[in-house]
Amino acid sequence: MPEPLIIKTVADMSRWSKDQFKAGRTIGFVPTMGALHAGHRGLIERARRENDAVAVSIFVNPTQFGPHEDFHKYPRTFDADRKLCAEAGADCIFFPDVKEMYDQDARTWVEVGGLGDTLCGLSRPSHFRGVTTVVAKLFNIVRPDRAYFGQKDAQQLRILEVLTRDLCFGIEIVPCETVREPDGLALSSRNQYLSPDERQQALCLLRALEYCKKRVAAGERDAMKLSGEMAGMIEKEPDAEIDYVALVDAETLDDLHTLSGEVLVALAVKIGNTRLIDNVRISLPKP
Amino acid sequence: MPEPLIIKTVADMSRWSKDQFKAGRTIGFVPTMGALHAGHRGLIERARRENDAVAVSIFVNPTQFGPHEDFHKYPRTFDADRKLCAEAGADCIFFPDVKEMYDQDARTWVEVGGLGDTLCGLSRPSHFRGVTTVVAKLFNIVRPDRAYFGQKDAQQLRILEVLTRDLCFGIEIVPCETVREPDGLALSSRNQYLSPDERQQALCLLRALEYCKKRVAAGERDAMKLSGEMAGMIEKEPDAEIDYVALVDAETLDDLHTLSGEVLVALAVKIGNTRLIDNVRISLPKP
Repeated sequence: MPEPLIIKTVADMSRWSKDQFKAGRTIGFVPTMGALHAGHRGLIERARRENDAVAVSIFVNPTQFGPHEDFHKYPRTFDADRKLCAEAGADCIFFPDVKEMYDQDARTWVEVGGLGDTLCGLSRPSHFRGVTTVVAKLFNIVRPDRAYFGQKDAQQLRILEVLTRDLCFGIEIVPCETVREPDGLALSSRNQYLSPDERQQALCLLRALEYCKKRVAAGERDAMKLSGEMAGMIEKEPDAEIDYVALVDAETLDDLHTLSGEVLVALAVKIGNTRLIDNVRISLPKP
Repeated sequence: MPEPLIIKTVADMSRWSKDQFKAGRTIGFVPTMGALHAGHRGLIERARRENDAVAVSIFVNPTQFGPHEDFHKYPRTFDADRKLCAEAGADCIFFPDVKEMYDQDARTWVEVGGLGDTLCGLSRPSHFRGVTTVVAKLFNIVRPDRAYFGQKDAQQLRILEVLTRDLCFGIEIVPCETVREPDGLALSSRNQYLSPDERQQALCLLRALEYCKKRVAAGERDAMKLSGEMAGMIEKEPDAEIDYVALVDAETLDDLHTLSGEVLVALAVKIGNTRLIDNVRISLPKP
């Protein structure tokens, strides 16, 4: 298992990318903030299968954290990350520092209008602007053929699909299924913040989503009713505080009153101090 | 003189660009809105000298026109443009229609904060957002090594330099000197809107700029005094209406009180219904 090349500068990363292209090799790209888990591993392994060369970026992006969020305490585990990247078959790791990625006078923002103002955008108002800006930069530096993102971050995924289309990046965005613990908890770098008791309570997210799926399979189409029932289930946990329970159109992220077409059922719940998200998609006939 | 290739789709343009890159050829790019004049010709000829392959884009970009501006009447002269591109040595012309460039649900904006709110941005509030968004798209499609812009559009040039730096495009922005008529009027596709009488009055822009240069050479450093004197000269013309007379830092575009360092002296003046801009740069010792 060869060690991936560690690349620290934009110029070197860009050169690596051009070298691949000149050699006729396709590039698969997995942008991450590090603290890699089996979910990331799945993305890298898929990129490995579908491309000639695989780049992973590890960059805890300050512009996507709010002023009171966990930028400084976000887990940084580079040695373990490097090992996981090697095992999963990455050829290189782009690992720049903040100064390398952002000029001290940086003032350019890339924004996908509307889609970032709802769901997670309500409690994290500048989050998606930070995500789209850094992803646009990474796309320009790495110039991949395909980029891999987890469906756990459903809103991010949809926003990045629109970004890629609107700015003509010519990159295929590949959505990858959420990876879960054996008991169903969606993998997240933030799960490590949970105490053993909170870890148990965190199962309420998937429980509510599974319940919703069953109710829809049994014929329920009333979004308000379903979200109310899901909220009731979640609120039984002593340390759960709901941020949102939403049933939205999977493409526009607009609220649905009556379910039809491609539906995204999405949750954000704080368990103690840790904010967790999860979602499922349900395909129904169009109205 | 070979006819340039006319390319109408994003996919074909992107393919052309990749083919150049694979063949080891550098690409020079001149983005335009058509109605080409000797100023554009200078950009294309310089791109020809400095690169192996030259692409010109002709696209009247709707998102950079305000609701009451001249998008619909903006001159469209494709046959003459093609001839000029051929003479100046362009290899291809990217000539997409609006539907090809903008998805009907397009909602992504690229904005350079601050620099677009001053000078022309005051009377054209969403103009530079349209410029930066379309240039980001064109850069992604054409992927040039160098892109050529006229210094007549000084604010646009500065904004695009910052855009290119901040989003890590890896493209060299090449500023090119303003091309003028024999009597000094800066070339502009909008000059053709001027009546013969207005054409005469339009010379007041350069006259004021030249006067300013002389006053600075003679030791004047008071920006307010200089702008007042320039405004007085311009207002002598019966159909001239000043939008702004500004003396700003050439890098930050911040207003200067006392001139020093790199100074941009910039004007926007309506002559009748036609809005014209012009500028000069003055290099002074730093304070």
